[in-house]
Amino acid sequence: MKLDFSVAVHSILYLDAHRDSKVASRELAQSLHLNPVMIRNILSVLHKHGYLTGTVGKNGGYQLDLALADMNLGNLYDLTIPPTISYARFITGPSKTDEQADQSPIAANISETLTDLFTVADRQYRAYYHQFTMADLQADLNHHGTFLQHEQDSES
Amino acid sequence: MKLDFSVAVHSILYLDAHRDSKVASRELAQSLHLNPVMIRNILSVLHKHGYLTGTVGKNGGYQLDLALADMNLGNLYDLTIPPTISYARFITGPSKTDEQADQSPIAANISETLTDLFTVADRQYRAYYHQFTMADLQADLNHHGTFLQHEQDSES
Repeated sequence: MKLDFSVAVHSILYLDAHRDSKVASRELAQSLHLNPVMIRNILSVLHKHGYLTGTVGKNGGYQLDLALADMNLGNLYDLTIPPTISYARFITGPSKTDEQADQSPIAANISETLTDLFTVADRQYRAYYHQFTMADLQADLNHHGTFLQHEQDSES
Repeated sequence: MKLDFSVAVHSILYLDAHRDSKVASRELAQSLHLNPVMIRNILSVLHKHGYLTGTVGKNGGYQLDLALADMNLGNLYDLTIPPTISYARFITGPSKTDEQADQSPIAANISETLTDLFTVADRQYRAYYHQFTMADLQADLNHHGTFLQHEQDSES
């Protein structure tokens, strides 16, 4: 888990609060307490995917192209924190090239089993975020408890 | 995410396949391709929680105290990879002690909102593991596809 998702979310909320103007990365940097380069890197991904427009130069800056309700939180999560490509470093057992390795059925099969388990668990994790949009996140920001309430509702 | 959960799972499967004998950490280390100290550290947690017995000395070793069907996968996950205590380093915005900080409503509230979001998402993630026992994992090891099939079934 990295900071990128939070940077995207925070930037979008800030741009939403300043929809009438172009916002420079320097201004965002002050609100987020991060350096402008990191912000520009993450916003360039959002730009590429149509969330916002960014122009350079003296009167340049970022402006949102979508309404908050049209930004799915899961899509933003997937964009900024892509799924793990290989779980190899989280899984025990011999490497495939190691001929001295224990070739017991457990050692031979644990990698595929744990990869499946971790992969499905991660898909379920991301499905949680896909239930919401940035409008839900803004609602929680204005009145904390949205996500906790939603959890209670889905349990009952 | 760390290796600890995989070490616990792999060790338990190995001990289950050798229930009639005591298994030394050195033997486990060979199967898992890890150093015995790491394995002993993780098994000492399992010992403390009643999963297995460990004795030291010449004829010492580990033996399981529970059936695989009585070991919940979520409990093992929670034991070996405890929930994050603070999401502060994954969240943007000023530190509370910074008086120069942007005190906009966004900056002032984003930490609580994202903490709630991440906390509930993590609880849902862990709930996934809690649906299974080590017997399910062994079933997948013997015949891959258990977890993928379960995912398909819960979607339809």
